[in-house]
Amino acid sequence: MSAAASRCAVGVDIGGTKTVAALVDGSGAVIGRAAEPTPGGDGPDAILATALRLVKAVADGTRPLGVGIGSAGVIDHRSGVVLSATSVLRDWAGTLVRERISDATALPVQVVNDVHAHALGEAWIGAAAGAGSMLMVAVGTGVGASFVHGGEVLFGAHCVAGHLGHVPSAAAGSRLCVCGRVGHLEAVAAGPALTASYSELVGRPVSTLQEVVRDAVAGSEAARVVVTDGAKALGAAVGGAVNLLDPEVVVIGGGVVGAGQMWWRPMERALRDELLPATADVQVCGSRLGSDAALVGAARLVLTDDFRTKGKR
Amino acid sequence: MSAAASRCAVGVDIGGTKTVAALVDGSGAVIGRAAEPTPGGDGPDAILATALRLVKAVADGTRPLGVGIGSAGVIDHRSGVVLSATSVLRDWAGTLVRERISDATALPVQVVNDVHAHALGEAWIGAAAGAGSMLMVAVGTGVGASFVHGGEVLFGAHCVAGHLGHVPSAAAGSRLCVCGRVGHLEAVAAGPALTASYSELVGRPVSTLQEVVRDAVAGSEAARVVVTDGAKALGAAVGGAVNLLDPEVVVIGGGVVGAGQMWWRPMERALRDELLPATADVQVCGSRLGSDAALVGAARLVLTDDFRTKGKR
Repeated sequence: MSAAASRCAVGVDIGGTKTVAALVDGSGAVIGRAAEPTPGGDGPDAILATALRLVKAVADGTRPLGVGIGSAGVIDHRSGVVLSATSVLRDWAGTLVRERISDATALPVQVVNDVHAHALGEAWIGAAAGAGSMLMVAVGTGVGASFVHGGEVLFGAHCVAGHLGHVPSAAAGSRLCVCGRVGHLEAVAAGPALTASYSELVGRPVSTLQEVVRDAVAGSEAARVVVTDGAKALGAAVGGAVNLLDPEVVVIGGGVVGAGQMWWRPMERALRDELLPATADVQVCGSRLGSDAALVGAARLVLTDDFRTKGKR
Repeated sequence: MSAAASRCAVGVDIGGTKTVAALVDGSGAVIGRAAEPTPGGDGPDAILATALRLVKAVADGTRPLGVGIGSAGVIDHRSGVVLSATSVLRDWAGTLVRERISDATALPVQVVNDVHAHALGEAWIGAAAGAGSMLMVAVGTGVGASFVHGGEVLFGAHCVAGHLGHVPSAAAGSRLCVCGRVGHLEAVAAGPALTASYSELVGRPVSTLQEVVRDAVAGSEAARVVVTDGAKALGAAVGGAVNLLDPEVVVIGGGVVGAGQMWWRPMERALRDELLPATADVQVCGSRLGSDAALVGAARLVLTDDFRTKGKR
């Protein structure tokens, strides 16, 4: 065990509702896992204390190589500082996550955005393992994405690369997007957009996407149309992104994929309807690591010399 | 001269109508230039013979480090083989460009697609010199693009990365694109699309974009609307791509930019109307190297050890 343990790292996923930590070995296997609600409303000290408690719990008795963290918000991966975040994580912007976790653990720490961490996990040992490049798309409360090329995630000049939810979508018409712009994909393809559309069509409050899917399965034509339209909008935008980026593999995950084949089939058809002959053989598949992806991808950041060297620049 | 000349390379730009070669020094300066019409209809032997004649003309009396070639068509940059091309270059697909030019010159040769070469030129010493990442967009007969990050162009899994013309555009409606799909940006924003739209509106044949622009300047409302609508469609798609890729700089070139401020202003406004707060300060500028960009970028491929090593993989 000691030799294997010496190649382990701790991966941490700080989300809006839950923080999870795990010990991850050099092959990407998750050895131990611990979770607590993220005390987002209590501010940075409480959020960091929770993360530290979980790190100590999973690393107990081992000597991990370091701690890799994927966090909600825009993260400067070079400094490990939070550049901005939604109000779900109060005062998270400005937090020196890397410095504080490193000081408290005396370990090397790397911090990236959680979608970027998710993509690194899938690219390493998940659905895109072995592929030279991957576009990962996460469709849930929002529509996020991340492009990984040669094992490296595209962070972007402002550390926000991957905002596929904020490309224009014909299906979105003049709908207002959460970002303040109009006509963006997220306003028509994210989970809340589907729920709101259905609620509007049936004239009663609908609180979850599960409810829409259940009604569609039960025969509601309105519910089926809502799910199908969201799927088509997502697929068209991803197809365009494939023509632009020419990735080897597209991995699609997130809560909305849980709607099943009634969503996946029209999504993939719309995606393939956009493809150039040259990109037509792109592989499109579901996420393989599920909720472990960000943990595993974050751990990967400190598991290889390669990442450790680059992250320190 | 001999010391400077020893750091020179020959850049070649093989286009559908014209082939240009130039001696380019280590700073990107173009020392000598020669051009001939591309004998596209005569097949690969004639096209290569023309390129070789131009290489010899500009390299005469010097000992260049190698030959870098940007060519129309889809090029496998690793092997220097043409994967596909339009009928303008007859039988160009399958041509072993790198091997044949290298055998004939006894020099190292690198071959890439001309849009990729163009982007490398602008990223090296053009409008994006010094930037960490750049999205270059070329709007002319088609709409092409290329993403350069850390000095390296994104080639893509099938060597076709950058097909921004084939992302969905709300403005394109159900128009047929040259690729066979419907609703793509190129069908509404490329030069021929603007010319065709104007011709349809005024009910007479219109052969060039210059004619549309001239009529717009002379007060034609129809011409102004056509130019503005094309500009807006392009800007919206580029804005979406900026949110996806988060480049430091966007460089926009190509024949359509020649329409001037009546095109540029609505294009940039539409682009900025899509931006997230985090990407809102992206720099948007015109191409600086103009028709020399692909030559210079191609020469760059063989001017540094870095590129020479990577290209040989």
